Amino acid sequence: MNGFQIVSRRRALATSAATLGGLTASSLSHAQTGMQRKTLSHYQVAATADTVHWGYFSKSLKPLVEVQSGDFVTIETLTHHANDDAARMVKGDPGAESVFYWDKTRKGVNRRGAGPMDASLFGRGAGEGLGVHICTGPVAVAGAEEGDVLEVRILDVKTRPSANPQHKGKSFGSNAAAWWGFHYNDQIEEPKKREVITIYEVDATGERDFAKALYNFRWTPQTDPFGVVHKTIDYPGVPVDHSTIKENWGVLKNVRVPIRPHFGVLGLAPKEADMVDSIPPSYTGGNIDNWRIGKGATMFYPVAVKGALLSVGDPHASQGDSELCGTAIECSLTGTFQLILHKKSELKGTPLENLNYPLLETQSEFVLHGFSFPNYLADLGAKAQSDIYSKSSVDLALRDAFRKMRHFLMTTQGLNEDEAVSLMSVGVDFGVTQVVDGNWGVHAIVKKALFIGSES
Amino acid sequence: MNGFQIVSRRRALATSAATLGGLTASSLSHAQTGMQRKTLSHYQVAATADTVHWGYFSKSLKPLVEVQSGDFVTIETLTHHANDDAARMVKGDPGAESVFYWDKTRKGVNRRGAGPMDASLFGRGAGEGLGVHICTGPVAVAGAEEGDVLEVRILDVKTRPSANPQHKGKSFGSNAAAWWGFHYNDQIEEPKKREVITIYEVDATGERDFAKALYNFRWTPQTDPFGVVHKTIDYPGVPVDHSTIKENWGVLKNVRVPIRPHFGVLGLAPKEADMVDSIPPSYTGGNIDNWRIGKGATMFYPVAVKGALLSVGDPHASQGDSELCGTAIECSLTGTFQLILHKKSELKGTPLENLNYPLLETQSEFVLHGFSFPNYLADLGAKAQSDIYSKSSVDLALRDAFRKMRHFLMTTQGLNEDEAVSLMSVGVDFGVTQVVDGNWGVHAIVKKALFIGSES
Repeated sequence: MNGFQIVSRRRALATSAATLGGLTASSLSHAQTGMQRKTLSHYQVAATADTVHWGYFSKSLKPLVEVQSGDFVTIETLTHHANDDAARMVKGDPGAESVFYWDKTRKGVNRRGAGPMDASLFGRGAGEGLGVHICTGPVAVAGAEEGDVLEVRILDVKTRPSANPQHKGKSFGSNAAAWWGFHYNDQIEEPKKREVITIYEVDATGERDFAKALYNFRWTPQTDPFGVVHKTIDYPGVPVDHSTIKENWGVLKNVRVPIRPHFGVLGLAPKEADMVDSIPPSYTGGNIDNWRIGKGATMFYPVAVKGALLSVGDPHASQGDSELCGTAIECSLTGTFQLILHKKSELKGTPLENLNYPLLETQSEFVLHGFSFPNYLADLGAKAQSDIYSKSSVDLALRDAFRKMRHFLMTTQGLNEDEAVSLMSVGVDFGVTQVVDGNWGVHAIVKKALFIGSES
Repeated sequence: MNGFQIVSRRRALATSAATLGGLTASSLSHAQTGMQRKTLSHYQVAATADTVHWGYFSKSLKPLVEVQSGDFVTIETLTHHANDDAARMVKGDPGAESVFYWDKTRKGVNRRGAGPMDASLFGRGAGEGLGVHICTGPVAVAGAEEGDVLEVRILDVKTRPSANPQHKGKSFGSNAAAWWGFHYNDQIEEPKKREVITIYEVDATGERDFAKALYNFRWTPQTDPFGVVHKTIDYPGVPVDHSTIKENWGVLKNVRVPIRPHFGVLGLAPKEADMVDSIPPSYTGGNIDNWRIGKGATMFYPVAVKGALLSVGDPHASQGDSELCGTAIECSLTGTFQLILHKKSELKGTPLENLNYPLLETQSEFVLHGFSFPNYLADLGAKAQSDIYSKSSVDLALRDAFRKMRHFLMTTQGLNEDEAVSLMSVGVDFGVTQVVDGNWGVHAIVKKALFIGSES
């Protein structure tokens, strides 16, 4: 045996063709000779103003659907940066248009963020942009309770084609070098405090594996339809008026960026607070921003609330380790997931027992996620959601990743501490996941090839 | 053109069979039809008590040899951890025996570290162990001066076979989970302040690509031949008396560690001080501890002193990113290098102009090295060599790696700052090189495949 697999139960994979648009379920019930018949469902969740929550996780959200363990769900996700170039990323797309709708009197999705609705804090808008990601969901899993583990298999990831006939066959993404980026207070060209949006083009057919930059522009104060002026990128979904900015075409013209389509946000509702800013990642996942959370990867999350409540958002076409300037190539994607519930009572003695962080498994690797504060909502107390933005460091995240990897090696491989520590130093790679999401991340990668099993 | 190469001049590669042992040179002068004849030399530098300097770099060291640009040099290196298991890593090996020789009256190499010779500071021994690596060299390059760049191509890396007939065909390495490790004050099993040595076996024939742990032991106070007791691993090369320790065999028995043979220390003498502790890496390289500095890699270093003065040491069979517990699989290796001098006057307008850090190039990647303090000897002033051990952080190293990558992309790709910052966020990976060498490191990896050249 080369390596091992966390999950012993494997089910036959089933998919169905079903029309996107709202929420539909198609039952699969074709029997196969010599095999046990099992009925699985495949749900489709479109991204519309009615199926997204913008900028927060909440255990109080009503699920869009409740699935059974083993079921499939295809979920559309929209990038919250689509309005940086609405002609390419919103226009003609009914789902995106409903989500981004905003006129003088009404927004398609009013609340954006976990902040107050009366916008009294900073006056930026409902929810105050304290949390920015358009999250589709939540999806509930029948029978899930605190202490269980939800396995989320990412079976497929597709880019969302532009609905504008002028851009047929293409998808687009936006990269914002923003005020929350690691570079922001350390720029060398003038003006030194500037935010820059770069629009990238991605092939929508899946035939090309790279993105190309089209143009960039410097953010200028943008007035939203309610009349609020946004001098910086301080509220998500503000439509950029392209008559007020200067498009610089031909940037990065000799550069191709290999795509790594993945979901920046994928995770469950935490239990510690009712309204939780979508930006800082934590023990139930969320905005981990690891580009490895893409097709072929499986995530394991500790369930914190009844139903688990899975939401997906912040789709990325590509990102580097660290997400240095504040964002990735933010690009709408659609993912197909299989959700498998592992009950606490079945986990005793297994590698998933007492799992208290988001764990990634691929064909060849395990990737553990460390954060400056592993459960910042609990670790930092009442003011956690503001304090987290001033207390993080890569050093703290490395400390957490080290402790998690030690625990993982000791529990899943039966090593003692001395063995685990030696192995970590000679065979485990620690990298910078992100330094722009409040709760900074370091991931630890251990290859399954290290573990040769007991027969040799 | 796919990507680009830093170096335009390429020379025919020449090697020669020459006997190891002392220092020999063999001139190559076979003419080939239709080709220009060029005479190159291939030098062999054995590791003996006369050819190593232990624990420090120094611009005052007399070079073992002066080579011409383009020449080859094969350099033996010894791990300073060989005496953790002298039977496997020293016994019967004349070079290693001469270096590690230590009786009541004499050490083969007395000075170990950049500290005082009278051992008045801590009483640990000459040089005080302020610097620990056995470095072979220095090798001078004719005509090299401050402002030039030395290119070091790593053409081959071989493990050093055990000279003990009982262990024929095998090489060995030691991993020390030591007091300077990231884990040390954060252990969970008792006793919580313990140092542990794990001995690994590596195939010496090159036919197997993994290392296996043999046994480990807890460090106990070791009395050196001069009578000094070492309660911790506080001085390099102290012979471990195996009658005083307990060997635990069968550790990590189901684990194979893929080998990544490389040189932890490879670099040039800095100009800022005469005696420089070998532990903290800096702008002229040294103890970078990046496992990518192995066969097939090319390093570029800024030359700081006349002759460049290249030294090599701290050989590793494998290491993970972060080198978490303090060391890698410390395993003697022999490397073959080609040294190419790039004069400052020829660098204007090239990617190497004003290079002020160690840069790694492979077939597919550039890897830039950031440190908490890019030139700590200059950055931290008179007490730099002690202060560096209390001032480092991963955050600072990431800051430095960001700045270096920005400069690299702007100068080598002709990008402006906005392009460079966007590209870094979507296509460059930042990882933790090491957090155990005083001056902590973060590396930034950019794939050449990103750069498609100007023709497309």
